[in-house]
Amino acid sequence: MVRKLVAEALGTLILVCTVVGSGIMAVNLAEGNNAVALLGNTLATGAILVVLITVLGPLSGAHFNPAVSLVFRLKGDLSNRDLLAYVSAQCIGGLVGTALAHAMFELPLFTSSVNIRTGHGQFIAETVATFGLVVTILGGLKYRSEAVPMLVGLYITAGYWFTASTSFANPAVTLARGFTDSFSGIRPVDMPLFWAAQIVGAVFALAMMRVLMTDDETS
Amino acid sequence: MVRKLVAEALGTLILVCTVVGSGIMAVNLAEGNNAVALLGNTLATGAILVVLITVLGPLSGAHFNPAVSLVFRLKGDLSNRDLLAYVSAQCIGGLVGTALAHAMFELPLFTSSVNIRTGHGQFIAETVATFGLVVTILGGLKYRSEAVPMLVGLYITAGYWFTASTSFANPAVTLARGFTDSFSGIRPVDMPLFWAAQIVGAVFALAMMRVLMTDDETS
Amino acid sequence: MVRKLVAEALGTLILVCTVVGSGIMAVNLAEGNNAVALLGNTLATGAILVVLITVLGPLSGAHFNPAVSLVFRLKGDLSNRDLLAYVSAQCIGGLVGTALAHAMFELPLFTSSVNIRTGHGQFIAETVATFGLVVTILGGLKYRSEAVPMLVGLYITAGYWFTASTSFANPAVTLARGFTDSFSGIRPVDMPLFWAAQIVGAVFALAMMRVLMTDDETS
Amino acid sequence: MVRKLVAEALGTLILVCTVVGSGIMAVNLAEGNNAVALLGNTLATGAILVVLITVLGPLSGAHFNPAVSLVFRLKGDLSNRDLLAYVSAQCIGGLVGTALAHAMFELPLFTSSVNIRTGHGQFIAETVATFGLVVTILGGLKYRSEAVPMLVGLYITAGYWFTASTSFANPAVTLARGFTDSFSGIRPVDMPLFWAAQIVGAVFALAMMRVLMTDDETS
Repeated sequence: MVRKLVAEALGTLILVCTVVGSGIMAVNLAEGNNAVALLGNTLATGAILVVLITVLGPLSGAHFNPAVSLVFRLKGDLSNRDLLAYVSAQCIGGLVGTALAHAMFELPLFTSSVNIRTGHGQFIAETVATFGLVVTILGGLKYRSEAVPMLVGLYITAGYWFTASTSFANPAVTLARGFTDSFSGIRPVDMPLFWAAQIVGAVFALAMMRVLMTDDETS
Repeated sequence: MVRKLVAEALGTLILVCTVVGSGIMAVNLAEGNNAVALLGNTLATGAILVVLITVLGPLSGAHFNPAVSLVFRLKGDLSNRDLLAYVSAQCIGGLVGTALAHAMFELPLFTSSVNIRTGHGQFIAETVATFGLVVTILGGLKYRSEAVPMLVGLYITAGYWFTASTSFANPAVTLARGFTDSFSGIRPVDMPLFWAAQIVGAVFALAMMRVLMTDDETS
Repeated sequence: MVRKLVAEALGTLILVCTVVGSGIMAVNLAEGNNAVALLGNTLATGAILVVLITVLGPLSGAHFNPAVSLVFRLKGDLSNRDLLAYVSAQCIGGLVGTALAHAMFELPLFTSSVNIRTGHGQFIAETVATFGLVVTILGGLKYRSEAVPMLVGLYITAGYWFTASTSFANPAVTLARGFTDSFSGIRPVDMPLFWAAQIVGAVFALAMMRVLMTDDETS
Repeated sequence: MVRKLVAEALGTLILVCTVVGSGIMAVNLAEGNNAVALLGNTLATGAILVVLITVLGPLSGAHFNPAVSLVFRLKGDLSNRDLLAYVSAQCIGGLVGTALAHAMFELPLFTSSVNIRTGHGQFIAETVATFGLVVTILGGLKYRSEAVPMLVGLYITAGYWFTASTSFANPAVTLARGFTDSFSGIRPVDMPLFWAAQIVGAVFALAMMRVLMTDDETS
């Protein structure tokens, strides 16, 4: 179990470090064109997800995401205790990831974000984003399990652009992004709305996939 | 059959939501540089196609496209009744996709597009676009069926740039894009020309691939 | 043999149509930023190569390139007569591809390019570009043949950026690009230098790979 | 052994030629938008890594990187003598790669870079970059060896954006980039800091992966 938790923490750490770091790099270079900045941010995030899920998946399942761990809890693959441990490791890893990104760019390790991300559009967006992510994971695991790392990377690549929230889709990453006053940040006060939407989207996706893939178990 | 139709509707919904949503996001951020906007739009669309075809393909074949369903009808894989049901599900899914994208960006659910897309160049472009898509699908299914999701994603990635119409190549998506007054929209009055070109291109591709791949059946 | 030649002509046609068409689209949209234009051009070309080589490879080998056909002639896989037929099909397909791209964008079917591409730097660049392409193909065929479509697409993706000539690396495509007065064009008077460099690079790559991969045949 | 060294030199040559050449091309075209320049630089580097590792990996292991060769020395896969030969071939190949890129763009073959890359943020960044690269390689080799070329290409794609140093992560490439006064250059005086960080990151990654993947050998 310790190795699983180390893998979850390390994966979430590198994931957040990539999201935050590439956001800082992109804005530093993009001369105010935020679409160009988002291209760099997207490319980095999509690419690292494929790498991390491939390399750490055999160790812990490579959730790096409390909403995904919750889905596996509801499917019976994790106990309550496992879920708590996974979520803790993900949150700690994510926060360290923010600090490490800041350290590389010689910024204070933690700063509160002032990026406003609220309103019903953002709630819908995060629900859709997490719904799609869980559909991707459950469908991928069932029909093409060796492709799951690529599918998740591609899904998030799309999500950065098609959802109005740029697809956080991950409560631990949302938490970690609360403490970076940069491109990828989110005001801490806006985090609970995102968490709620993410849980709603994840649970709804699990329910739908259970119906759609009925001939055998959902996993 | 119900599950197939749900899969077709869900897939077309997410596809259109991605096309429309990423177009809105891209224009919001791109400061008037439409090439940068199209890069974001392309990346999102190509990526989501790979995901959707992989995950929903085993359920319904993942057409998400009446022109593709027509090809499978002509090949004898669908009955007339199936074709009608598939096309209906695709059109309904597509329209809901437009509405969902608009909801995320807090816009009215449906607005008529004013993007002019007409003229013989656009007709040729949509014919070429759909011809190429059907060649990709039929050739892919015959020679490397596990690669079809990736091939379709890559084909549309190219099509967004090399065809003068940015490769709608899909009558249901064309319909749904008639009702968004944003980057990816098309004036409703221009839709019939696109539909005609898409059907011509698809049928021509089927005829050509039947000749080229004669040693056994075209599928 | 007829089917092979149709496949070679069709593939080169779509390849050139993509190169020329995406160049026109990119410049139309890119507001004078040629790096953004080249990104669109690169994405389209790399993507379509993967598709075309996968789908048409089983029919003709998917050379679409006289320099590549020459290499297979030198390896003994094609006769002189085959080589002549392949090269003819590629050149005809390429020229039709230029015309089709122009038709989609409602331009005259053929126009002489005025893009100056000459000098020893360009000669070195095309030699390097074609050398690398042939190394990619021969090494790929030997060690990971199912990956060749992806490898060629990725190689050209890189070549568009790292070679000073943007990696034409293909005499038939060079010929076809002589007749488009747009982003991807080349002055007809500059074409022979490119052809010479491409042949030198291809032959040198074959020689090197024969030495490097000696334990069995080069293919 | 000679073939191995030729493969290491050739691979590092083409890799450096791509990094340096695409940097020059990108800045020439990008009209001062360095984020757009970095997108072109990233796309080219990530793509060529997949090609080179696939095609040359079966010959030499495709290290192209003294830090990676050091890791294989520490794991016992190379002798001290092999390590010295590999590193020499990589450094020579890298320097020739810089010269070849310059030749294509008709610049002096070698020029000292004046790009300042120093400070503790850069040290942390190179440590993180090389740590992540070695984790990717060791984890990839163990769990999905046929995916290693793609994983390394994707990791560096991410690294160009998320690390403050743009992930040199390679002492031989660092050396070669000291002699180009262009986008990708590094002041020669800043190189030792990078080398130190790269070795620290590589060794730390090996230690961590030995612990994480204990049930059998690390490779």
